Amino acid sequence: MPQDFKTLLASTAYDVEQVLAGALLIRGYDQMTDPMRHAVLNGGKRLRAFLAVHSAAIFDVPKDAALQAAAAIECLHAYSLVHDDLPCMDNDDLRRGQPTVHVKWDDATAVLTGDALQSLAFELLSELLHIEPAFVLQLIQGLARSSGMQGMVLGQAQDIAAETVNTPLTLEQITALQSNKTGALIEWSATAGPIMAGHDIAPLHFYAKSIGLAFQIQDDILDIEGDAKLAGKRLQKDAQAGKATFVSLLGMDQAKTRAQDLVNQACDALSTYGDRAKPMRQVAQFIINRNM
Amino acid sequence: MPQDFKTLLASTAYDVEQVLAGALLIRGYDQMTDPMRHAVLNGGKRLRAFLAVHSAAIFDVPKDAALQAAAAIECLHAYSLVHDDLPCMDNDDLRRGQPTVHVKWDDATAVLTGDALQSLAFELLSELLHIEPAFVLQLIQGLARSSGMQGMVLGQAQDIAAETVNTPLTLEQITALQSNKTGALIEWSATAGPIMAGHDIAPLHFYAKSIGLAFQIQDDILDIEGDAKLAGKRLQKDAQAGKATFVSLLGMDQAKTRAQDLVNQACDALSTYGDRAKPMRQVAQFIINRNM
Repeated sequence: MPQDFKTLLASTAYDVEQVLAGALLIRGYDQMTDPMRHAVLNGGKRLRAFLAVHSAAIFDVPKDAALQAAAAIECLHAYSLVHDDLPCMDNDDLRRGQPTVHVKWDDATAVLTGDALQSLAFELLSELLHIEPAFVLQLIQGLARSSGMQGMVLGQAQDIAAETVNTPLTLEQITALQSNKTGALIEWSATAGPIMAGHDIAPLHFYAKSIGLAFQIQDDILDIEGDAKLAGKRLQKDAQAGKATFVSLLGMDQAKTRAQDLVNQACDALSTYGDRAKPMRQVAQFIINRNM
Repeated sequence: MPQDFKTLLASTAYDVEQVLAGALLIRGYDQMTDPMRHAVLNGGKRLRAFLAVHSAAIFDVPKDAALQAAAAIECLHAYSLVHDDLPCMDNDDLRRGQPTVHVKWDDATAVLTGDALQSLAFELLSELLHIEPAFVLQLIQGLARSSGMQGMVLGQAQDIAAETVNTPLTLEQITALQSNKTGALIEWSATAGPIMAGHDIAPLHFYAKSIGLAFQIQDDILDIEGDAKLAGKRLQKDAQAGKATFVSLLGMDQAKTRAQDLVNQACDALSTYGDRAKPMRQVAQFIINRNM
Protein backbone atom coordinates (compact mmCIF):
# COMPACT_ATOMS: atom_id res chain seq x y z
CA MET A 1 0.00 0.00 0.00
CA PRO A 2 1.60 3.32 -1.07
CA GLN A 3 2.54 5.50 1.91
CA ASP A 4 0.58 8.52 0.68
CA PHE A 5 -2.57 6.40 0.40
CA LYS A 6 -2.02 4.81 3.80
CA THR A 7 -1.78 8.29 5.33
CA LEU A 8 -4.84 9.52 3.47
CA LEU A 9 -6.92 6.50 4.50
CA ALA A 10 -5.97 7.02 8.15
CA SER A 11 -6.53 10.78 8.11
CA THR A 12 -9.91 10.44 6.38
CA ALA A 13 -11.00 7.86 8.95
CA TYR A 14 -9.82 10.19 11.71
CA ASP A 15 -11.74 13.13 10.26
CA VAL A 16 -15.00 11.24 9.88
CA GLU A 17 -14.69 9.76 13.36
CA GLN A 18 -14.34 13.28 14.76
CA VAL A 19 -17.60 14.21 13.02
CA LEU A 20 -19.31 11.06 14.32
CA ALA A 21 -18.07 11.59 17.88
CA GLY A 22 -19.15 15.22 17.74
CA ALA A 23 -22.59 14.33 16.37
CA LEU A 24 -23.16 11.96 19.29
CA LEU A 25 -21.69 14.38 21.82
CA ILE A 26 -24.01 17.28 20.96
CA ARG A 27 -27.00 14.96 21.31
CA GLY A 28 -26.36 14.59 25.05
CA TYR A 29 -25.65 11.60 27.26
CA ASP A 30 -28.26 8.95 28.06
CA GLN A 31 -28.63 5.17 27.92
CA MET A 32 -28.36 5.06 24.11
CA THR A 33 -25.04 6.92 23.96
CA ASP A 34 -22.62 4.16 24.93
CA PRO A 35 -24.05 1.41 22.69
CA MET A 36 -24.22 3.87 19.79
CA ARG A 37 -20.63 4.97 20.33
CA HIS A 38 -19.59 1.32 20.57
CA ALA A 39 -21.34 0.52 17.29
CA VAL A 40 -20.11 3.43 15.23
CA LEU A 41 -16.73 4.32 16.77
CA ASN A 42 -15.13 0.88 16.97
CA GLY A 43 -12.62 1.34 14.19
CA GLY A 44 -13.18 -0.11 10.80
CA LYS A 45 -11.60 0.83 7.51
CA ARG A 46 -14.17 3.57 6.78
CA LEU A 47 -14.11 2.65 3.12
CA ARG A 48 -17.57 4.09 2.47
CA ALA A 49 -16.58 7.34 4.17
CA PHE A 50 -13.41 7.45 2.07
CA LEU A 51 -15.42 7.04 -1.13
CA ALA A 52 -17.82 9.83 -0.13
CA VAL A 53 -15.07 12.24 0.94
CA HIS A 54 -12.80 11.69 -2.05
CA SER A 55 -15.56 11.59 -4.66
CA ALA A 56 -16.57 14.96 -3.20
CA ALA A 57 -13.01 16.29 -3.41
CA ILE A 58 -13.00 15.75 -7.19
CA PHE A 59 -15.77 18.35 -7.49
CA ASP A 60 -14.54 20.76 -4.79
CA VAL A 61 -17.49 20.03 -2.52
CA PRO A 62 -16.89 21.85 0.80
CA LYS A 63 -15.06 19.52 3.18
CA ASP A 64 -17.55 19.88 6.04
CA ALA A 65 -20.41 18.73 3.80
CA ALA A 66 -18.38 15.80 2.47
CA LEU A 67 -17.48 14.67 5.98
CA GLN A 68 -21.08 14.98 7.14
CA ALA A 69 -22.23 12.77 4.24
CA ALA A 70 -19.41 10.36 5.09
CA ALA A 71 -20.54 10.26 8.72
CA ALA A 72 -24.09 9.50 7.56
CA ILE A 73 -23.06 6.51 5.46
CA GLU A 74 -20.94 5.17 8.33
CA CYS A 75 -23.99 5.38 10.64
CA LEU A 76 -26.05 3.50 8.08
CA HIS A 77 -23.35 0.87 7.67
CA ALA A 78 -22.90 0.53 11.44
CA TYR A 79 -26.66 0.05 11.92
CA SER A 80 -26.63 -2.78 9.37
CA LEU A 81 -23.75 -4.51 11.17
CA VAL A 82 -25.42 -4.26 14.59
CA HIS A 83 -28.63 -5.82 13.25
CA ASP A 84 -26.78 -8.42 11.14
CA ASP A 85 -24.88 -9.57 14.20
CA LEU A 86 -28.09 -10.27 16.19
CA PRO A 87 -28.66 -13.89 17.29
CA CYS A 88 -31.71 -14.14 15.00
CA MET A 89 -29.59 -12.99 12.03
CA ASP A 90 -25.89 -13.94 11.63
CA ASN A 91 -25.42 -14.46 15.38
CA ASP A 92 -21.93 -13.00 15.63
CA ASP A 93 -20.25 -12.34 18.97
CA LEU A 94 -17.29 -10.46 17.62
CA ARG A 95 -16.96 -7.44 15.39
CA ARG A 96 -13.60 -5.80 14.76
CA GLY A 97 -12.23 -7.75 17.70
CA GLN A 98 -14.82 -6.32 20.12
CA PRO A 99 -17.95 -7.93 21.55
CA THR A 100 -20.98 -7.07 19.42
CA VAL A 101 -23.65 -4.72 20.84
CA HIS A 102 -26.06 -7.51 21.77
CA VAL A 103 -23.25 -9.35 23.61
CA LYS A 104 -21.98 -6.30 25.50
CA TRP A 105 -25.54 -5.09 26.26
CA ASP A 106 -28.52 -7.19 25.16
CA ASP A 107 -30.68 -7.92 22.09
CA ALA A 108 -33.18 -5.14 22.77
CA THR A 109 -30.39 -2.58 23.04
CA ALA A 110 -28.89 -3.85 19.78
CA VAL A 111 -32.23 -3.53 17.96
CA LEU A 112 -32.68 0.02 19.28
CA THR A 113 -29.06 0.99 18.58
CA GLY A 114 -29.39 -0.07 14.96
CA ASP A 115 -32.72 1.71 14.65
CA ALA A 116 -31.32 4.94 16.08
CA LEU A 117 -28.22 4.78 13.86
CA GLN A 118 -30.42 4.53 10.80
CA SER A 119 -32.38 7.62 11.91
CA LEU A 120 -29.12 9.42 12.66
CA ALA A 121 -27.85 8.75 9.14
CA PHE A 122 -30.85 10.58 7.67
CA GLU A 123 -30.64 13.29 10.33
CA LEU A 124 -27.01 14.00 9.46
CA LEU A 125 -27.85 14.26 5.77
CA SER A 126 -30.75 16.59 6.48
CA GLU A 127 -28.29 18.92 8.25
CA LEU A 128 -25.84 19.17 5.34
CA LEU A 129 -24.61 22.73 4.94
CA HIS A 130 -23.46 24.50 1.75
CA ILE A 131 -25.31 22.07 -0.52
CA GLU A 132 -28.43 22.89 -2.53
CA PRO A 133 -31.53 21.45 -0.84
CA ALA A 134 -32.58 19.64 -4.04
CA PHE A 135 -29.20 17.85 -4.12
CA VAL A 136 -29.47 16.97 -0.43
CA LEU A 137 -32.88 15.45 -1.14
CA GLN A 138 -31.34 13.43 -3.95
CA LEU A 139 -28.72 12.09 -1.50
CA ILE A 140 -31.42 11.21 1.03
CA GLN A 141 -33.56 9.50 -1.57
CA GLY A 142 -30.56 7.55 -2.79
CA LEU A 143 -29.62 6.45 0.72
CA ALA A 144 -33.17 5.36 1.51
CA ARG A 145 -33.41 3.37 -1.73
CA SER A 146 -29.99 1.74 -1.41
CA SER A 147 -30.61 0.69 2.16
CA GLY A 148 -34.24 -0.39 2.08
CA MET A 149 -36.50 -3.04 0.61
CA GLN A 150 -34.96 -2.70 -2.86
CA GLY A 151 -31.38 -2.47 -1.62
CA MET A 152 -29.47 -3.61 1.43
CA VAL A 153 -32.40 -5.11 3.34
CA LEU A 154 -33.48 -7.07 0.28
CA GLY A 155 -29.92 -8.35 -0.17
CA GLN A 156 -29.83 -9.41 3.45
CA ALA A 157 -33.16 -11.24 3.09
CA GLN A 158 -31.89 -12.92 -0.09
CA ASP A 159 -28.73 -13.95 1.73
CA ILE A 160 -30.72 -15.53 4.56
CA ALA A 161 -32.99 -17.28 2.06
CA ALA A 162 -29.94 -18.64 0.23
CA GLU A 163 -28.95 -20.53 3.37
CA THR A 164 -32.10 -22.61 3.35
CA VAL A 165 -32.33 -23.60 -0.32
CA ASN A 166 -30.85 -26.88 -1.44
CA THR A 167 -29.45 -25.67 -4.75
CA PRO A 168 -26.59 -23.20 -4.36
CA LEU A 169 -27.08 -19.84 -6.07
CA THR A 170 -25.76 -19.20 -9.57
CA LEU A 171 -23.16 -16.55 -10.36
CA GLU A 172 -25.91 -14.29 -11.65
CA GLN A 173 -27.97 -14.68 -8.48
CA ILE A 174 -24.98 -14.05 -6.22
CA THR A 175 -24.04 -10.98 -8.21
CA ALA A 176 -27.59 -9.62 -7.83
CA LEU A 177 -27.70 -10.47 -4.13
CA GLN A 178 -24.36 -8.79 -3.41
CA SER A 179 -25.25 -5.79 -5.52
CA ASN A 180 -28.23 -5.27 -3.19
CA LYS A 181 -26.51 -6.22 0.04
CA THR A 182 -23.28 -4.25 -0.20
CA GLY A 183 -23.09 -2.79 -3.71
CA ALA A 184 -25.90 -0.25 -3.33
CA LEU A 185 -24.30 1.54 -0.37
CA ILE A 186 -20.91 1.55 -2.07
CA GLU A 187 -22.56 3.16 -5.11
CA TRP A 188 -24.22 5.74 -2.91
CA SER A 189 -20.86 6.58 -1.31
CA ALA A 190 -18.91 6.90 -4.55
CA THR A 191 -21.58 9.04 -6.21
CA ALA A 192 -22.19 11.29 -3.18
CA GLY A 193 -19.56 13.71 -4.53
CA PRO A 194 -21.09 14.43 -7.95
CA ILE A 195 -24.59 14.48 -6.47
CA MET A 196 -23.65 17.13 -3.89
CA ALA A 197 -21.98 19.16 -6.65
CA GLY A 198 -24.81 18.69 -9.15
CA HIS A 199 -22.51 16.94 -11.63
CA ASP A 200 -22.95 13.92 -13.90
CA ILE A 201 -22.72 10.76 -11.82
CA ALA A 202 -22.12 8.34 -14.73
CA PRO A 203 -18.32 7.84 -14.44
CA LEU A 204 -18.43 7.32 -10.68
CA HIS A 205 -21.52 5.18 -10.95
CA PHE A 206 -19.72 2.81 -13.33
CA TYR A 207 -16.65 2.90 -11.07
CA ALA A 208 -18.80 2.05 -8.02
CA LYS A 209 -20.58 -0.85 -9.72
CA SER A 210 -17.19 -2.37 -10.52
CA ILE A 211 -15.50 -1.87 -7.17
CA GLY A 212 -18.64 -3.01 -5.34
CA LEU A 213 -18.42 -6.36 -7.05
CA ALA A 214 -14.63 -6.50 -6.60
CA PHE A 215 -15.16 -5.78 -2.90
CA GLN A 216 -17.45 -8.75 -2.51
CA ILE A 217 -15.17 -11.08 -4.46
CA GLN A 218 -12.33 -10.05 -2.16
CA ASP A 219 -14.56 -10.70 0.87
CA ASP A 220 -15.14 -14.23 -0.40
CA ILE A 221 -11.39 -14.67 -1.02
CA LEU A 222 -10.64 -13.48 2.53
CA ASP A 223 -13.28 -15.81 3.92
CA ILE A 224 -10.96 -18.61 2.67
CA GLU A 225 -7.48 -17.10 2.83
CA GLY A 226 -7.94 -14.48 5.54
CA ASP A 227 -6.67 -14.36 9.09
CA ALA A 228 -9.52 -14.37 11.64
CA LYS A 229 -7.38 -12.46 14.14
CA LEU A 230 -6.70 -9.68 11.64
CA ALA A 231 -10.31 -9.63 10.49
CA GLY A 232 -11.62 -9.52 14.06
CA LYS A 233 -14.51 -11.79 13.12
CA ARG A 234 -15.23 -15.42 12.37
CA LEU A 235 -14.13 -16.60 8.93
CA GLN A 236 -14.92 -19.53 6.64
CA LYS A 237 -18.55 -19.25 7.63
CA ASP A 238 -19.75 -19.46 4.05
CA ALA A 239 -17.60 -22.44 3.18
CA GLN A 240 -18.76 -24.26 6.31
CA ALA A 241 -22.38 -23.43 5.52
CA GLY A 242 -21.91 -24.85 2.02
CA LYS A 243 -23.00 -21.53 0.52
CA ALA A 244 -22.09 -20.60 -3.02
CA THR A 245 -19.55 -17.77 -3.18
CA PHE A 246 -17.61 -16.11 -5.99
CA VAL A 247 -14.68 -18.35 -5.05
CA SER A 248 -16.70 -21.56 -5.03
CA LEU A 249 -18.23 -20.65 -8.39
CA LEU A 250 -15.19 -19.19 -10.18
CA GLY A 251 -12.31 -20.92 -8.43
CA MET A 252 -9.68 -18.97 -6.50
CA ASP A 253 -7.46 -17.98 -9.46
CA GLN A 254 -10.27 -16.78 -11.64
CA ALA A 255 -11.86 -14.93 -8.73
CA LYS A 256 -8.60 -13.00 -8.24
CA THR A 257 -8.29 -12.23 -11.94
CA ARG A 258 -11.89 -11.08 -12.11
CA ALA A 259 -11.42 -8.78 -9.11
CA GLN A 260 -8.33 -7.18 -10.68
CA ASP A 261 -10.13 -6.71 -14.02
CA LEU A 262 -12.99 -4.99 -12.25
CA VAL A 263 -10.62 -2.65 -10.45
CA ASN A 264 -8.83 -1.84 -13.71
CA GLN A 265 -12.05 -0.96 -15.49
CA ALA A 266 -13.20 1.08 -12.48
CA CYS A 267 -10.00 3.14 -12.59
CA ASP A 268 -10.22 3.60 -16.35
CA ALA A 269 -13.70 5.08 -15.94
CA LEU A 270 -12.20 7.92 -13.91
CA SER A 271 -9.61 8.99 -16.51
CA THR A 272 -11.67 12.09 -17.26
CA TYR A 273 -10.87 13.40 -13.75
CA GLY A 274 -7.11 12.97 -14.11
CA ASP A 275 -5.04 13.31 -10.94
CA ARG A 276 -7.98 14.55 -8.90
CA ALA A 277 -9.29 10.97 -8.84
CA LYS A 278 -6.02 9.47 -7.62
CA PRO A 279 -7.35 8.59 -4.15
CA MET A 280 -10.36 6.89 -5.75
CA ARG A 281 -8.01 4.77 -7.91
CA GLN A 282 -5.84 3.94 -4.93
CA VAL A 283 -8.80 2.85 -2.83
CA ALA A 284 -10.06 0.66 -5.67
CA GLN A 285 -6.75 -1.21 -5.69
CA PHE A 286 -6.75 -1.33 -1.89
CA ILE A 287 -10.16 -3.00 -1.91
CA ILE A 288 -8.68 -6.11 -3.51
CA ASN A 289 -5.29 -5.95 -1.78
CA ARG A 290 -6.65 -5.64 1.77
CA ASN A 291 -6.11 -8.58 4.09
CA MET A 292 -9.04 -7.76 6.43
CA MET B 1 -68.36 10.12 17.66
CA PRO B 2 -70.03 12.60 15.22
CA GLN B 3 -70.97 10.97 11.93
CA ASP B 4 -69.04 13.49 9.80
CA PHE B 5 -65.86 12.79 11.79
CA LYS B 6 -66.37 9.02 11.62
CA THR B 7 -66.64 9.28 7.83
CA LEU B 8 -63.61 11.56 7.60
CA LEU B 9 -61.50 9.26 9.77
CA ALA B 10 -62.41 6.26 7.61
CA SER B 11 -61.89 8.06 4.30
CA THR B 12 -58.52 9.47 5.40
CA ALA B 13 -57.39 6.01 6.48
CA TYR B 14 -58.56 4.64 3.12
CA ASP B 15 -56.70 7.32 1.18
CA VAL B 16 -53.42 6.80 3.01
CA GLU B 17 -53.69 3.02 2.69
CA GLN B 18 -54.07 3.44 -1.06
CA VAL B 19 -50.84 5.44 -1.10
CA LEU B 20 -49.07 2.84 1.07
CA ALA B 21 -50.30 -0.07 -1.05
CA GLY B 22 -49.26 1.77 -4.22
CA ALA B 23 -45.83 2.59 -2.81
CA LEU B 24 -45.20 -1.10 -2.08
CA LEU B 25 -46.68 -2.22 -5.40
CA ILE B 26 -44.41 -0.07 -7.57
CA ARG B 27 -41.40 -1.44 -5.70
CA GLY B 28 -42.00 -4.92 -7.13
CA TYR B 29 -42.66 -8.26 -5.51
CA ASP B 30 -40.02 -10.21 -3.57
CA GLN B 31 -39.61 -11.82 -0.16
CA MET B 32 -39.90 -8.51 1.72
CA THR B 33 -43.23 -7.55 0.16
CA ASP B 34 -45.62 -9.71 2.19
CA PRO B 35 -44.16 -9.00 5.63
CA MET B 36 -44.05 -5.29 4.83
CA ARG B 37 -47.66 -5.29 3.63
CA HIS B 38 -48.64 -7.23 6.75
CA ALA B 39 -46.90 -4.69 8.98
CA VAL B 40 -48.17 -1.51 7.38
CA LEU B 41 -51.56 -2.49 5.89
CA ASN B 42 -53.12 -4.30 8.83
CA GLY B 43 -55.65 -1.63 9.73
CA GLY B 44 -55.10 0.69 12.62
CA LYS B 45 -56.72 4.01 13.32
CA ARG B 46 -54.19 5.95 11.20
CA LEU B 47 -54.26 8.76 13.76
CA ARG B 48 -50.83 10.04 12.78
CA ALA B 49 -51.83 10.05 9.12
CA PHE B 50 -55.02 11.92 10.02
CA LEU B 51 -53.03 14.58 11.86
CA ALA B 52 -50.66 15.03 8.92
CA VAL B 53 -53.43 15.19 6.30
CA HIS B 54 -55.71 17.55 8.21
CA SER B 55 -52.97 19.83 9.50
CA ALA B 56 -51.98 20.13 5.83
CA ALA B 57 -55.57 20.89 4.76
CA ILE B 58 -55.60 23.98 7.01
CA PHE B 59 -52.87 25.48 4.83
CA ASP B 60 -54.10 24.22 1.45
CA VAL B 61 -51.10 21.91 1.02
CA PRO B 62 -51.70 19.81 -2.14
CA LYS B 63 -53.51 16.61 -1.18
CA ASP B 64 -51.00 14.26 -2.84
CA ALA B 65 -48.14 15.74 -0.80
CA ALA B 66 -50.15 15.53 2.41
CA LEU B 67 -51.01 11.89 1.77
CA GLN B 68 -47.40 11.05 0.95
CA ALA B 69 -46.24 12.59 4.24
CA ALA B 70 -49.03 10.69 5.99
CA ALA B 71 -47.88 7.43 4.38
CA ALA B 72 -44.33 8.15 5.57
CA ILE B 73 -45.34 8.59 9.21
CA GLU B 74 -47.42 5.41 9.05
CA CYS B 75 -44.36 3.50 7.77
CA LEU B 76 -42.28 4.91 10.60
CA HIS B 77 -44.98 4.01 13.15
CA ALA B 78 -45.38 0.51 11.69
CA TYR B 79 -41.61 -0.09 11.87
CA SER B 80 -41.64 0.84 15.56
CA LEU B 81 -44.48 -1.61 16.26
CA VAL B 82 -42.79 -4.49 14.42
CA HIS B 83 -39.58 -4.00 16.41
CA ASP B 84 -41.41 -3.36 19.72
CA ASP B 85 -43.28 -6.64 19.30
CA LEU B 86 -40.05 -8.68 18.98
CA PRO B 87 -39.42 -11.35 21.64
CA CYS B 88 -36.40 -9.40 22.91
CA MET B 89 -38.53 -6.27 23.30
CA ASP B 90 -42.22 -6.40 24.36
CA ASN B 91 -42.67 -9.96 23.09
CA ASP B 92 -46.17 -9.53 21.69
CA ASP B 93 -47.85 -12.21 19.55
CA LEU B 94 -50.84 -10.17 18.55
CA ARG B 95 -51.22 -6.78 16.92
CA ARG B 96 -54.60 -5.51 15.79
CA GLY B 97 -55.94 -9.04 16.14
CA GLN B 98 -53.33 -10.47 13.74
CA PRO B 99 -50.18 -12.45 14.47
CA THR B 100 -47.18 -10.12 14.68
CA VAL B 101 -44.53 -10.26 11.93
CA HIS B 102 -42.06 -12.37 13.93
CA VAL B 103 -44.84 -14.88 14.72
CA LYS B 104 -46.12 -15.13 11.15
CA TRP B 105 -42.59 -15.18 9.70
CA ASP B 106 -39.58 -15.15 12.05
CA ASP B 107 -37.45 -12.78 14.12
CA ALA B 108 -34.97 -12.05 11.34
CA THR B 109 -37.79 -11.11 8.96
CA ALA B 110 -39.30 -8.85 11.62
CA VAL B 111 -35.97 -7.06 12.17
CA LEU B 112 -35.56 -6.56 8.41
CA THR B 113 -39.18 -5.51 7.90
CA GLY B 114 -38.88 -2.81 10.53
CA ASP B 115 -35.57 -1.67 9.08
CA ALA B 116 -36.99 -1.43 5.56
CA LEU B 117 -40.11 0.40 6.77
CA GLN B 118 -37.91 3.02 8.41
CA SER B 119 -35.98 3.51 5.14
CA LEU B 120 -39.26 3.66 3.22
CA ALA B 121 -40.55 6.45 5.47
CA PHE B 122 -37.58 8.63 4.51
CA GLU B 123 -37.79 7.55 0.89
CA LEU B 124 -41.46 8.60 0.69
CA LEU B 125 -40.63 11.99 2.18
CA SER B 126 -37.75 12.49 -0.23
CA GLU B 127 -40.23 11.99 -3.11
CA LEU B 128 -42.70 14.68 -1.95
CA LEU B 129 -43.99 16.67 -4.90
CA HIS B 130 -45.15 20.31 -4.97
CA ILE B 131 -43.30 21.20 -1.78
CA GLU B 132 -40.19 23.38 -1.58
CA PRO B 133 -37.07 21.24 -1.11
CA ALA B 134 -36.04 23.24 1.97
CA PHE B 135 -39.39 22.43 3.62
CA VAL B 136 -39.09 18.76 2.67
CA LEU B 137 -35.68 18.73 4.33
CA GLN B 138 -37.21 20.25 7.44
CA LEU B 139 -39.79 17.41 7.49
CA ILE B 140 -37.07 14.80 7.07
CA GLN B 141 -34.93 16.33 9.77
CA GLY B 142 -37.93 16.46 12.09
CA LEU B 143 -38.81 12.83 11.42
CA ALA B 144 -35.24 11.67 12.00
CA ARG B 145 -35.02 13.60 15.27
CA SER B 146 -38.42 12.52 16.58
CA SER B 147 -37.75 8.88 15.83
CA GLY B 148 -34.11 8.48 16.80
CA MET B 149 -31.83 8.57 19.82
CA GLN B 150 -33.39 11.77 21.15
CA GLY B 151 -36.97 10.75 20.38
CA MET B 152 -38.84 7.50 19.97
CA VAL B 153 -35.88 5.15 20.39
CA LEU B 154 -34.81 6.94 23.56
CA GLY B 155 -38.37 6.70 24.91
CA GLN B 156 -38.40 3.00 24.15
CA ALA B 157 -35.07 2.51 25.93
CA GLN B 158 -36.33 4.52 28.90
CA ASP B 159 -39.47 2.39 28.98
CA ILE B 160 -37.45 -0.83 29.04
CA ALA B 161 -35.17 0.57 31.73
CA ALA B 162 -38.23 1.53 33.82
CA GLU B 163 -39.18 -2.14 34.03
CA THR B 164 -36.01 -3.07 35.84
CA VAL B 165 -35.77 -0.29 38.42
CA ASN B 166 -37.22 -0.84 41.86
CA THR B 167 -38.68 2.63 42.35
CA PRO B 168 -41.56 3.41 39.98
CA LEU B 169 -41.12 6.51 37.84
CA THR B 170 -42.47 9.88 38.93
CA LEU B 171 -45.12 11.78 36.98
CA GLU B 172 -42.41 14.02 35.57
CA GLN B 173 -40.31 11.04 34.43
CA ILE B 174 -43.27 9.30 32.81
CA THR B 175 -44.27 12.48 31.03
CA ALA B 176 -40.74 12.85 29.64
CA LEU B 177 -40.57 9.17 28.66
CA GLN B 178 -43.92 9.28 26.86
CA SER B 179 -43.10 12.55 25.19
CA ASN B 180 -40.11 10.80 23.63
CA LYS B 181 -41.78 7.47 22.95
CA THR B 182 -45.04 8.57 21.34
CA GLY B 183 -45.27 12.35 21.71
CA ALA B 184 -42.50 13.23 19.28
CA LEU B 185 -44.08 11.43 16.31
CA ILE B 186 -47.50 12.91 17.12
CA GLU B 187 -45.89 16.36 17.12
CA TRP B 188 -44.25 15.65 13.80
CA SER B 189 -47.59 14.58 12.32
CA ALA B 190 -49.57 17.57 13.56
CA THR B 191 -46.94 20.07 12.44
CA ALA B 192 -46.33 18.46 9.03
CA GLY B 193 -48.99 20.76 7.52
CA PRO B 194 -47.51 24.12 8.49
CA ILE B 195 -44.00 22.87 7.73
CA MET B 196 -44.96 21.84 4.18
CA ALA B 197 -46.64 25.20 3.70
CA GLY B 198 -43.83 27.21 5.26
CA HIS B 199 -46.15 28.59 7.98
CA ASP B 200 -45.69 29.18 11.71
CA ILE B 201 -45.86 25.85 13.53
CA ALA B 202 -46.45 27.29 17.03
CA PRO B 203 -50.24 26.75 17.36
CA LEU B 204 -50.11 23.19 16.06
CA HIS B 205 -46.99 22.46 18.07
CA PHE B 206 -48.78 23.44 21.28
CA TYR B 207 -51.84 21.44 20.16
CA ALA B 208 -49.66 18.39 19.48
CA LYS B 209 -47.86 18.55 22.83
CA SER B 210 -51.23 18.50 24.57
CA ILE B 211 -52.89 15.75 22.56
CA GLY B 212 -49.74 13.64 22.68
CA LEU B 213 -49.93 13.58 26.45
CA ALA B 214 -53.71 13.06 26.38
CA PHE B 215 -53.17 10.14 23.99
CA GLN B 216 -50.84 8.43 26.44
CA ILE B 217 -53.11 9.05 29.43
CA GLN B 218 -55.95 7.46 27.44
CA ASP B 219 -53.69 4.50 26.59
CA ASP B 220 -53.08 3.99 30.30
CA ILE B 221 -56.83 4.26 30.98
CA LEU B 222 -57.55 1.68 28.28
CA ASP B 223 -54.89 -0.61 29.69
CA ILE B 224 -57.18 -0.85 32.76
CA GLU B 225 -60.69 -0.33 31.37
CA GLY B 226 -60.25 -1.48 27.78
CA ASP B 227 -61.48 -4.59 26.02
CA ALA B 228 -58.62 -6.80 24.82
CA LYS B 229 -60.77 -8.13 21.96
CA LEU B 230 -61.49 -4.63 20.67
CA ALA B 231 -57.89 -3.55 21.15
CA GLY B 232 -56.54 -6.63 19.36
CA LYS B 233 -53.65 -6.85 21.80
CA ARG B 234 -52.90 -7.88 25.37
CA LEU B 235 -54.00 -5.39 28.02
CA GLN B 236 -53.19 -4.72 31.68
CA LYS B 237 -49.56 -5.43 30.94
CA ASP B 238 -48.39 -2.34 32.79
CA ALA B 239 -50.54 -3.00 35.85
CA GLN B 240 -49.31 -6.60 35.97
CA ALA B 241 -45.71 -5.47 35.61
CA GLY B 242 -46.19 -3.04 38.50
CA LYS B 243 -45.15 -0.15 36.26
CA ALA B 244 -46.10 3.39 37.13
CA THR B 245 -48.66 4.84 34.69
CA PHE B 246 -50.63 8.08 34.55
CA VAL B 247 -53.53 6.15 36.10
CA SER B 248 -51.49 4.66 38.93
CA LEU B 249 -49.99 8.06 39.68
CA LEU B 250 -53.06 10.31 39.25
CA GLY B 251 -55.90 7.91 39.97
CA MET B 252 -58.54 7.08 37.37
CA ASP B 253 -60.78 10.12 37.89
CA GLN B 254 -58.00 12.64 37.84
CA ALA B 255 -56.41 10.97 34.82
CA LYS B 256 -59.68 11.39 32.91
CA THR B 257 -60.03 15.03 33.98
CA ARG B 258 -56.44 15.75 33.02
CA ALA B 259 -56.91 14.18 29.59
CA GLN B 260 -60.04 16.27 28.93
CA ASP B 261 -58.27 19.45 30.08
CA LEU B 262 -55.41 18.74 27.71
CA VAL B 263 -57.80 18.22 24.79
CA ASN B 264 -59.63 21.45 25.62
CA GLN B 265 -56.43 23.48 25.66
CA ALA B 266 -55.27 21.79 22.45
CA CYS B 267 -58.50 22.81 20.70
CA ASP B 268 -58.32 26.36 22.04
CA ALA B 269 -54.84 26.71 20.54
CA LEU B 270 -56.36 26.24 17.08
CA SER B 271 -58.98 29.02 17.38
CA THR B 272 -56.97 31.15 14.97
CA TYR B 273 -57.76 28.66 12.18
CA GLY B 274 -61.54 28.73 12.74
CA ASP B 275 -63.58 26.06 10.98
CA ARG B 276 -60.64 24.87 8.91
CA ALA B 277 -59.27 23.17 12.02
CA LYS B 278 -62.52 21.34 12.82
CA PRO B 279 -61.14 17.87 11.94
CA MET B 280 -58.13 18.53 14.19
CA ARG B 281 -60.46 19.43 17.09
CA GLN B 282 -62.60 16.37 16.44
CA VAL B 283 -59.63 14.04 16.40
CA ALA B 284 -58.36 15.54 19.66
CA GLN B 285 -61.65 14.64 21.34
CA PHE B 286 -61.61 11.23 19.66
CA ILE B 287 -58.19 10.51 21.11
CA ILE B 288 -59.66 10.46 24.62
CA ASN B 289 -63.03 8.95 23.69
CA ARG B 290 -61.64 5.97 21.77
CA ASN B 291 -62.13 2.55 23.27
CA MET B 292 -59.21 0.91 21.43
